[in-house]
Amino acid sequence: MINKLVEKIKKTNAPIVVGLDPMLKYIPEQIQKRAFEEYGETLKGAGEAIWQYNKGIVDAVYDLIPAVKPQIAMYEQFGIEGMIAYQKTVDYCKEKDLVVIGDIKRGDIGSTSEAYAVGHLGRAKVGSSRLSGFGEDFATVNPYLGSDGVKPFIDVCREEKKGIFVLVKTSNPSSGEFQDRLIDGRPLYELVGEKVAQWGEEAMGDSYSYVGAVVGATYPEMGAVLRKIMPKAYILVPGYGAQGGKGADLLPFFNEDGLGAIVNSSRGIIAAYQQEKYAQFGAANYADASRQAVLDMIDDISTALGTK
Amino acid sequence: MINKLVEKIKKTNAPIVVGLDPMLKYIPEQIQKRAFEEYGETLKGAGEAIWQYNKGIVDAVYDLIPAVKPQIAMYEQFGIEGMIAYQKTVDYCKEKDLVVIGDIKRGDIGSTSEAYAVGHLGRAKVGSSRLSGFGEDFATVNPYLGSDGVKPFIDVCREEKKGIFVLVKTSNPSSGEFQDRLIDGRPLYELVGEKVAQWGEEAMGDSYSYVGAVVGATYPEMGAVLRKIMPKAYILVPGYGAQGGKGADLLPFFNEDGLGAIVNSSRGIIAAYQQEKYAQFGAANYADASRQAVLDMIDDISTALGTK
Repeated sequence: MINKLVEKIKKTNAPIVVGLDPMLKYIPEQIQKRAFEEYGETLKGAGEAIWQYNKGIVDAVYDLIPAVKPQIAMYEQFGIEGMIAYQKTVDYCKEKDLVVIGDIKRGDIGSTSEAYAVGHLGRAKVGSSRLSGFGEDFATVNPYLGSDGVKPFIDVCREEKKGIFVLVKTSNPSSGEFQDRLIDGRPLYELVGEKVAQWGEEAMGDSYSYVGAVVGATYPEMGAVLRKIMPKAYILVPGYGAQGGKGADLLPFFNEDGLGAIVNSSRGIIAAYQQEKYAQFGAANYADASRQAVLDMIDDISTALGTK
Repeated sequence: MINKLVEKIKKTNAPIVVGLDPMLKYIPEQIQKRAFEEYGETLKGAGEAIWQYNKGIVDAVYDLIPAVKPQIAMYEQFGIEGMIAYQKTVDYCKEKDLVVIGDIKRGDIGSTSEAYAVGHLGRAKVGSSRLSGFGEDFATVNPYLGSDGVKPFIDVCREEKKGIFVLVKTSNPSSGEFQDRLIDGRPLYELVGEKVAQWGEEAMGDSYSYVGAVVGATYPEMGAVLRKIMPKAYILVPGYGAQGGKGADLLPFFNEDGLGAIVNSSRGIIAAYQQEKYAQFGAANYADASRQAVLDMIDDISTALGTK
């Protein structure tokens, strides 16, 4: 799947991923109204609104981008009905041949991590059948529990040719509280980065590993260091746009081949119509606003990379 | 909810929690067969088998214990159908007046952590309604992302009088890879423990905080240190039984009032009938074997605590 991701990035010339992180406050009135008319102001109504909203965005942008990253928390907040909307979104994006990165940030130990890996990337054994659960192509993984927590994911990745992105340095202001603390003179995130590189050696695609890393756009200097520590890891970079990162800040995350990083934007794309810059589209044409925001993001990043 | 948990622990004289972590290999043949006859060897069939198995165990032990801890990964591995079994289990345990600790190990940043908190402990705003999603009483939380990731959970806990257990020192062999690394001469888990104590001050119940911690039974010396660092945090202790912890090892996790810790056993209880010690019950009476295993665990721990 890492090979497919790299290929699609080259083909679209767009090292970007659209974060499908729907919040009801982003969803145009008319979509919410229609969903609530059908199902009432219920969890099912919320799930339907999310799904219709996502579908509009995916239809408008799928030809421009290699991948999407649905943030499962935004679905999970609506319980089972939200999870059903998540599943529909994953399935639909796969139909559109998009690579689906499940932003699930799971992580546990041993057989429990294995269960998460099976549910999201693999197939569960039920009697003599092997059945896919959520079926994403990649998942994000939390490393706090150590190798015991990560290796079961890698085993499933090898079997299924899927991939993971391990949280190394997250984009949020307080990520430094633990991640930046010095251990033998070096920050924790570097140690995690080294582990990512080691884990990744066991699961190589053609030029990059099945094991990637998450490093926030908001920390480009740390990105430069981590880029060197994990040369074969694809870096998933959140924090562009709404969180403050800009195209020019992204160079340190890329390798010299212009590959090695994929930049996420969520709110900046999916709720573009709520920004002044795209307000002329109006709520009814929210998906067209998202398409324009994707085009602008590709332009910003390819200008910075000199690949325009 | 922490007050209710403490009260129920006192009433049952059982500082224990039964981990409802069903794997198909634990589930007696006859239950699987019935489920597969009804739904085929499908994810729905697996979900039904899990749910029936859980129900049997809960019916057999609910009067002896204060709480259960379903491990969501074991349900999530079967996709939506597994999540429905999780929801049924949570709802049924609440009906039986058990405190439900969702072992979900979630953790993200800002509005995303808030979405997890809302989905599991709070109520989502849908139009003018406020609707409960999964509706557990407590959730486990991963601290790697720092305060930004944990505070949204605490906000929801305060509003809903619910609680969390933050991963501090996990029970697995490789937990030390990052958690034990020294920072200014002290291991990372101590720093996380200090944060737990700080976070917990903002959300106090009568005698203990809404913010608890997870510390593995396999590390009693670290448990003793953490007990002092977080005097008001309830400690959820996994790793008893199947993972190697014994009653006598548990003393350091408790305060002098005999409170302050709740010990989890999963496989040792729910799959007791597969152990030699309880084999005489047979698969048909698996739930009776679980009841006996609970009685033995209470005996072991109350002997160690001198509360027998």
